[in-house]
Amino acid sequence: MQPKTLTAEVVSIGDEMTSGARLDTNAQWLSRRLGELGIEVTFHSTVGDTLQHNIDVFRIAAGRADVVVCTGGLGPTRDDLTRQALAAVVDQPLELRQSALDHIQGLFARRNREMPPRNEIQAMFPVGSLQILNPQGTAPGVDVTVRRGDHSTSRIFALPGVPAEMKRMFDETVAPRILEISGGSRTHIEHEVMKFFGVGESDMEQRLGEMIDRDHVPRVGITVSAATISLRISAIGQSPQECRQQIESTRAEILERVGDLHFGDGEEFEQYHAVEKLLAERGESLVSLELGRSAVLADWFASLGQSSAYRGGFCFANLDELAAVLEVDYAAAMETLRRRAGAQWLVAVDAYPPLESNADSPLPAAEVTLIVIDPTGEVFSTTSRLGGHPSIIYQRIGKAALAWLRHTLAESPAPRPASPTAES
Amino acid sequence: MQPKTLTAEVVSIGDEMTSGARLDTNAQWLSRRLGELGIEVTFHSTVGDTLQHNIDVFRIAAGRADVVVCTGGLGPTRDDLTRQALAAVVDQPLELRQSALDHIQGLFARRNREMPPRNEIQAMFPVGSLQILNPQGTAPGVDVTVRRGDHSTSRIFALPGVPAEMKRMFDETVAPRILEISGGSRTHIEHEVMKFFGVGESDMEQRLGEMIDRDHVPRVGITVSAATISLRISAIGQSPQECRQQIESTRAEILERVGDLHFGDGEEFEQYHAVEKLLAERGESLVSLELGRSAVLADWFASLGQSSAYRGGFCFANLDELAAVLEVDYAAAMETLRRRAGAQWLVAVDAYPPLESNADSPLPAAEVTLIVIDPTGEVFSTTSRLGGHPSIIYQRIGKAALAWLRHTLAESPAPRPASPTAES
Repeated sequence: MQPKTLTAEVVSIGDEMTSGARLDTNAQWLSRRLGELGIEVTFHSTVGDTLQHNIDVFRIAAGRADVVVCTGGLGPTRDDLTRQALAAVVDQPLELRQSALDHIQGLFARRNREMPPRNEIQAMFPVGSLQILNPQGTAPGVDVTVRRGDHSTSRIFALPGVPAEMKRMFDETVAPRILEISGGSRTHIEHEVMKFFGVGESDMEQRLGEMIDRDHVPRVGITVSAATISLRISAIGQSPQECRQQIESTRAEILERVGDLHFGDGEEFEQYHAVEKLLAERGESLVSLELGRSAVLADWFASLGQSSAYRGGFCFANLDELAAVLEVDYAAAMETLRRRAGAQWLVAVDAYPPLESNADSPLPAAEVTLIVIDPTGEVFSTTSRLGGHPSIIYQRIGKAALAWLRHTLAESPAPRPASPTAES
Repeated sequence: MQPKTLTAEVVSIGDEMTSGARLDTNAQWLSRRLGELGIEVTFHSTVGDTLQHNIDVFRIAAGRADVVVCTGGLGPTRDDLTRQALAAVVDQPLELRQSALDHIQGLFARRNREMPPRNEIQAMFPVGSLQILNPQGTAPGVDVTVRRGDHSTSRIFALPGVPAEMKRMFDETVAPRILEISGGSRTHIEHEVMKFFGVGESDMEQRLGEMIDRDHVPRVGITVSAATISLRISAIGQSPQECRQQIESTRAEILERVGDLHFGDGEEFEQYHAVEKLLAERGESLVSLELGRSAVLADWFASLGQSSAYRGGFCFANLDELAAVLEVDYAAAMETLRRRAGAQWLVAVDAYPPLESNADSPLPAAEVTLIVIDPTGEVFSTTSRLGGHPSIIYQRIGKAALAWLRHTLAESPAPRPASPTAES
């Protein structure tokens, strides 16, 4: 059975959002997730901590959307009014739910603290509403059904504003309930994120063709962050197995079309993770040299921590300065650095171009030389013309250097692997 | 005359926002600016590119807010419908404005291009509406007044979604018009941003006391970004002079209360700019060394470009590796680095602590040693306990190192300044 197409509205609650003190990122996250469930998000609304305004916003949202997901206003303080607003919208009193109270008291007990009396409000629910378990925090969510004049209904899911709690509650409880509402037996959802580098978004879209259409089954979403392209496969099915099968066949089709650009999987996986993994498998290590106006490679690799695959990073205005610090000749500087750092590989950017200060429009492409030195001391260099918005241009250049390193690594025979019992 | 307190709603238009493909940052920026004008933002709404939905959103907004500022939907393509929606809301036809058409054709002519016919729509305005000049782009803004049932009115300002164009149009045209609506003769606004480092937000608020109250004249807004605190003074007056006077006296009062934490002025000004300025004035230079899991100092200083005050950055897992690269003794590594790099000063972080992967809650404070070596080779070191959210902890540590460097610089007598005619 084909699920019914539902519309949704995302509501964000809090003076810190309407005043601009905080940037709302929950609404974006929820919109993407709802889209993956096949639900069209038609409106977002943001409202401050004023009871009547909250009631108004919920009435409007319930009137125009089948599903409303709201965040915020579930805390224990007096300006947290979501519970009261929902009670007013469904015209029901709040009642204490013992199971919710036990959960909240249990959380305080685990931290060796008494529950303050004001937290009791977090165990209060409009009569007839459902709870949404919050495994991490004291604010359970509220799930109410609003009856509309035309005998249809709208379902409101209220979640806390803390992103980590909100996300887990959405995935664990709200998404399955929405799949139930949308009808049919397909109540499981599974995701997989594949990562790519090397083309722009529109080229990627062209190569993927109908695979990224809205009605493709399973849905494949494309997002770009600082020149890294993510494809997110969202499979909805009757069982986890059915979802996995959809993902596997879609994955194979994607790899057939754009496999040459694929470098790994997972929301947070970037090329520097891929390079670190490759080098660790080969038992080799890397040193980075960045000339010009950035040190993104050093910062990325440093974040990996005590990886034996990364020996260190160097950032100078130009190569003369490296030569001076190493007390060697200009021409020998890079190779000396690689050797003394005890690294098999060196990757260098020569050089990150200058930016106009406060520039806010894409830069014209600049020539950048990307250099790799391999374990034998051989130098592989390529010159690229790279441009882009000032906020991402240095990341794009750093990523192009990593793509060049990955390419060179792929062409280089792996050393004989260290024996697994070498330490014995 | 005291201005009337107005309420405002911010509306964002575009499928890319409701679907979550793009994060809406315009609404936050506009909310802050409106707050600085003394206007309370009570709602945000986001709507996709559907004409009827746009009309509905504008009707609701005009019904509940005195001022509506919307962004998006003013482009030349068929899914840009803001103009048409506004015409429907005020029940007026669209008419061609020759002055707007001339402006658009002029922009194309300057780029040596013919104006495509579809851009003509950008010169169409609802009868009775005002234009908002867009000096940078082809989309002029629209300023319409909506009459409400109770004979009051609401004013809608429609701006393009491109942030650079939107911001300039708001500051140059919309803000003065809003000050006119709010009544009185105070139609000028001036801003000043002061930057601070060294305490948390709540301590800062406590020390500033009533200065950051909402009704303080002039208004002082506080924001925090990765442990840097910004105070934004927004003075509204009858003349630029009156605004300047308000700013100067408020600035003096702020410096009296928290001057010890102040390191500079301007939206984009950070401690590394302050350090670079200090060193350039002294004719001295700096090298940075970062041990552990980050290279934020190198990345910040590199972004300054060909500054003679920054000699380079080094990032290693530990000091042994630096010693190996320099081929010197462990104990001599830092001082050797400073000398060979030709720098008077060295700043070092030992060390950025590891993070749990995917951690999403504040880290317990870790002991970090911050080291400065001065031009005589003397070592100044301090140990701090620093914690915070994983997304900002490395920046906070880097900033603490810069605060330590600034402190040490302030205690160190400046060298005799280079003669201004030294090159002659």
